[in-house]
Amino acid sequence: MRIPNHIGIIPDGNRRWAKGQGLGKEEGYQHGLAPGLELLRQAKAYGIEEITYYGFTADNCKRPKIQQEAFQKACVEAVHMISMEGTSLLIVGNTESESFPKELLPYTRRTDIAGGGMKVNFLVNYGWEWDLSCIQSSKEMPIIHQLHSRDISRIDLIIRWGNTRRLSGFLPVQSVYSDFYVIDEMWPDFKTEHFKDAIEWYNKQDITLGG
Amino acid sequence: MRIPNHIGIIPDGNRRWAKGQGLGKEEGYQHGLAPGLELLRQAKAYGIEEITYYGFTADNCKRPKIQQEAFQKACVEAVHMISMEGTSLLIVGNTESESFPKELLPYTRRTDIAGGGMKVNFLVNYGWEWDLSCIQSSKEMPIIHQLHSRDISRIDLIIRWGNTRRLSGFLPVQSVYSDFYVIDEMWPDFKTEHFKDAIEWYNKQDITLGG
Repeated sequence: MRIPNHIGIIPDGNRRWAKGQGLGKEEGYQHGLAPGLELLRQAKAYGIEEITYYGFTADNCKRPKIQQEAFQKACVEAVHMISMEGTSLLIVGNTESESFPKELLPYTRRTDIAGGGMKVNFLVNYGWEWDLSCIQSSKEMPIIHQLHSRDISRIDLIIRWGNTRRLSGFLPVQSVYSDFYVIDEMWPDFKTEHFKDAIEWYNKQDITLGG
Repeated sequence: MRIPNHIGIIPDGNRRWAKGQGLGKEEGYQHGLAPGLELLRQAKAYGIEEITYYGFTADNCKRPKIQQEAFQKACVEAVHMISMEGTSLLIVGNTESESFPKELLPYTRRTDIAGGGMKVNFLVNYGWEWDLSCIQSSKEMPIIHQLHSRDISRIDLIIRWGNTRRLSGFLPVQSVYSDFYVIDEMWPDFKTEHFKDAIEWYNKQDITLGG
């Protein structure tokens, strides 16, 4: 079986899930924490080398304050949960903004935690325009090495929960050749079968890198 | 009904279609010409303002010479067919390469043809890296206005034929918020229902532009 080296995770649908449960929209994010950890363990078991989670974006920070606080808090907790697993952790996002949680600053350089291990990247206050804004046309260097997100490699497979079929600004350069698998269920309803189905689907794709 | 302003078309599956018909792979592209014209007329009837066709890419030029000649020829013919319809035509691609068909050079500036009309963009010898390579981090200007493809606007809906779920380097900046609809059938098997289904699906999406 051909396993992707690097997977991107778009854990969408937290607010719709909360609404469906009769909760406030901002209460959904907490219910996405356990799935994030479960998925990490599953990815490790498959031998996947790198995983990138879409935490929150600069665009998301146009939402009501109560939601912003909730997803910022959930991101900090997610990073702490993940870091206990033994990972090579990197946070990528615009730290020059109020929206970036200060607790996460130490991880904006790749850091081996609990003995190191799988590369785990977490996008926090990320913006696609911010990411591309340090490209210098004068540089004789591949674009992918010029980005703010230059320590995140090309992505083989992107899995998105919540039945929406778009990238929403997720790493536009690393995603140019990615296969894109969408799961109808909302992220808090994560099941290990979802991930298994995505990996099996990827195995059947003809990978050409645009050729 | 909410109609997308700008649609992107990835007409994939020509080679697989040809193989399925017992033809040489390179013979598929010719059978993609009539669908391209039919789709254009259908898009006009819906009142769509801009359409971008993925012709061929720099990546595609790694294929055998017989295929390269066939898709270059098909692109030139497609542009000629389309231009007769009354369009505001623009070809975007790297003209500084042997692979760019000389006949198309006059259209690398937007040109009103047969009275003008819908904006029709055609990517010819396009490369995502080439497109981003003129970004200047020093410029106080949105990234989308700095690209080689700066005359192509943000895309609302991308429709891809041939059952492959990836962008394959298609306009990474204009696609950051695009909804992505994939049709199982190969491009030469285009039916007007495909387009109708895609437009109806788009109408049901919640458009947030990342917010």
